[in-house]
Amino acid sequence: MLLPSQGQLEKYAELALRTGVNLQENQKLMINSTVEGAPFTRIVARKAYEMGAEDVHIVWADDELTRLRYEYADVETLKEVPDWQKDMFSYFGEKGAAILSIRSTDPDLLKGIDAGKVAAATKARSEAMTKFRDFTMNDRIQWSIVSIPIPAWAQKIFPEESEDNAVEKLWEQIFSIVRVDREDPVAAWEEHNQTLIQAKQFLNKKKYSKLIYKAPGTDLEVELPNNHIWKGGASQTVEGKVPFNPNMPTEEVFTAPHKYGVNGHVSSTKPLNYGGNVIDNFTLTFKDGKVVDYKAEEGEETLKHLLDTDEGSSRLGEMALVPHESPISQSGLIFYNTLYDENASCHLALGKAYPNNVEGGSDMSEDELDQSGVNHSLSHVDFMMGSDELDIDGVLEDGTTEPVMRKGSWALSFE
Amino acid sequence: MLLPSQGQLEKYAELALRTGVNLQENQKLMINSTVEGAPFTRIVARKAYEMGAEDVHIVWADDELTRLRYEYADVETLKEVPDWQKDMFSYFGEKGAAILSIRSTDPDLLKGIDAGKVAAATKARSEAMTKFRDFTMNDRIQWSIVSIPIPAWAQKIFPEESEDNAVEKLWEQIFSIVRVDREDPVAAWEEHNQTLIQAKQFLNKKKYSKLIYKAPGTDLEVELPNNHIWKGGASQTVEGKVPFNPNMPTEEVFTAPHKYGVNGHVSSTKPLNYGGNVIDNFTLTFKDGKVVDYKAEEGEETLKHLLDTDEGSSRLGEMALVPHESPISQSGLIFYNTLYDENASCHLALGKAYPNNVEGGSDMSEDELDQSGVNHSLSHVDFMMGSDELDIDGVLEDGTTEPVMRKGSWALSFE
Repeated sequence: MLLPSQGQLEKYAELALRTGVNLQENQKLMINSTVEGAPFTRIVARKAYEMGAEDVHIVWADDELTRLRYEYADVETLKEVPDWQKDMFSYFGEKGAAILSIRSTDPDLLKGIDAGKVAAATKARSEAMTKFRDFTMNDRIQWSIVSIPIPAWAQKIFPEESEDNAVEKLWEQIFSIVRVDREDPVAAWEEHNQTLIQAKQFLNKKKYSKLIYKAPGTDLEVELPNNHIWKGGASQTVEGKVPFNPNMPTEEVFTAPHKYGVNGHVSSTKPLNYGGNVIDNFTLTFKDGKVVDYKAEEGEETLKHLLDTDEGSSRLGEMALVPHESPISQSGLIFYNTLYDENASCHLALGKAYPNNVEGGSDMSEDELDQSGVNHSLSHVDFMMGSDELDIDGVLEDGTTEPVMRKGSWALSFE
Repeated sequence: MLLPSQGQLEKYAELALRTGVNLQENQKLMINSTVEGAPFTRIVARKAYEMGAEDVHIVWADDELTRLRYEYADVETLKEVPDWQKDMFSYFGEKGAAILSIRSTDPDLLKGIDAGKVAAATKARSEAMTKFRDFTMNDRIQWSIVSIPIPAWAQKIFPEESEDNAVEKLWEQIFSIVRVDREDPVAAWEEHNQTLIQAKQFLNKKKYSKLIYKAPGTDLEVELPNNHIWKGGASQTVEGKVPFNPNMPTEEVFTAPHKYGVNGHVSSTKPLNYGGNVIDNFTLTFKDGKVVDYKAEEGEETLKHLLDTDEGSSRLGEMALVPHESPISQSGLIFYNTLYDENASCHLALGKAYPNNVEGGSDMSEDELDQSGVNHSLSHVDFMMGSDELDIDGVLEDGTTEPVMRKGSWALSFE
């Protein structure tokens, strides 16, 4: 597989370790990687040790074997998650390890596999990961997700190109979007994060009680919990206050919608890659926070199973604002990869909300979170509904309304 | 990396699954594989599913990351084996999975790493694997080890060749030695196993009380436990009586030496690859079963640590007879890989004995095994001491002596 220069790969590795998980000396690092991604993962591991990592452990997965397993194993087998697997992830959480996911996903990996089988397995795995998810979703540990090209993904984005050319073009896009092509990517990220911090601070002062989304196919009112908090840019760990960037790239500011306060309908604007299948051109209708109707031109069966995962998977867990001028959006590409597409577009997530999107959320019980309007679910799946035709109004505490976004761009000035 | 034809690889995969672990329908399969070995491992996994495997789980390792870890992590970290790792292996034992190890080892992987560090880590891992080792060494599950080339290994054997040529030559050797090049490799194995069965049956009737080894640098008397059993060819699981071949290739018949009954000295005839380091041209002196002196031209420090692992690691756990005409021996190659070199040469093993090499051994307590002369240790390391200059005499129960091997060849006729 074609790889960029060693120098560029090392710059990316260093960025993922410093700006992404912000690896500390004598800290353990767990990396999720595919076998196909091994050449880059090895560079990251070496760099981590050079930075003083106590230990680096790789949890390997392999796309071809994953697909084989879905083809051949029965649903009961696919639902088995042995205790040692749960314990493995919890172990790294308990040891305060930094967790880096190096994703390289074929958007069509599970195309043609029975959607019910995939849904059952995904749900079982999500249940098994409950304890570990508490570490990441509450910022108890440093974690980050980055992506690297593989041919199957690259050719989904650039279907006209040869395998090598497609991979090369995708590396270029990634390096540009994640600022690896800057002279000092770490500094570029600090500067970039400042703009997100400005936006979230501004929105936190506004204390909107509701946002109203309008676009072709979308007319949606979303209430916000009292004491909601907009987040964006770097996160920090609850105890050690170690800053880290959970997503690279990130262009969003986001908060939790009120789980019982969503009404209207919303249409997707980009395909959603969920569990190895693509869901595209879909519309969700909400009543009092819950999806009461849905349709999809592609992947409707997969969408149905996603919504049916549990009580919370048909409610919203995140609302994120991304201006249409974002560099990813400007690339004009559809990445079939949520990490990229969500940062090109305003989006919402079905499923679990981040507890820290309300004041004191990470110390709340499930009941308290529910009373605050913070959704709970095994799943958390972002979908894109932003475009240059999206207008958003914000309703202030006194009931007056003001424009938040117009034609996909900020209608507010944060200065 | 250069690969043989798909057809040959599939034949090898099928042989490993049918003749090696003898995978049963609806059985789980665990595969140990390196990331470098992924192309072949994927073929094995697909074939396993086609044969009706319930589930295939790969435990991946990566040579480069293993080496990095030894270079950078401190010894305390290297000694850590989290519970989930032990539980992972035990899980597959308890589920009655078949265990296939697909080895591709760089003989010099850990060259230059402090031998004490390697020894401490190896010992800790061996301790952690105690429960799992009970499954394999007592034939409670079907298990098998096969090897595939990687450039670092191939070029150690063929140092004059280019990387591609060396790998190609090693594939050819492997396919010839493991009989993949026969029209029906499974049938060829059945036939081959018959000759090993003849030999072991013959030796079991002989009930030698002692074997006496003589060769340049070797003059060793090895007592055998009462009720020792020679094994060779296919093993079978204790409960289900499912036949399987733990090693591919295998050319040996073997039994347990008496742990307190070894006297004299023995010199190695081939290099020993132990934990990523090579030990070569070494001599061990035994008194009452225990190594009381040793020297090695290469890797003496590694040998020292091996002998110091625990009380049993300086006593013998296996004596194996392999005629010098074995196809591996005839190749004239040194493989720097125990699986191959041990099957070209009479050998002994330091460390744990297979309990089933004495009558009823797998049901014996540790004390009972000790009283029977069956060695216990965390380690089990074969070393080669056979050659065309080796003579072996057998002492019968009545005290008379007869030739067992002369100049490395059988002096007995099994017909």
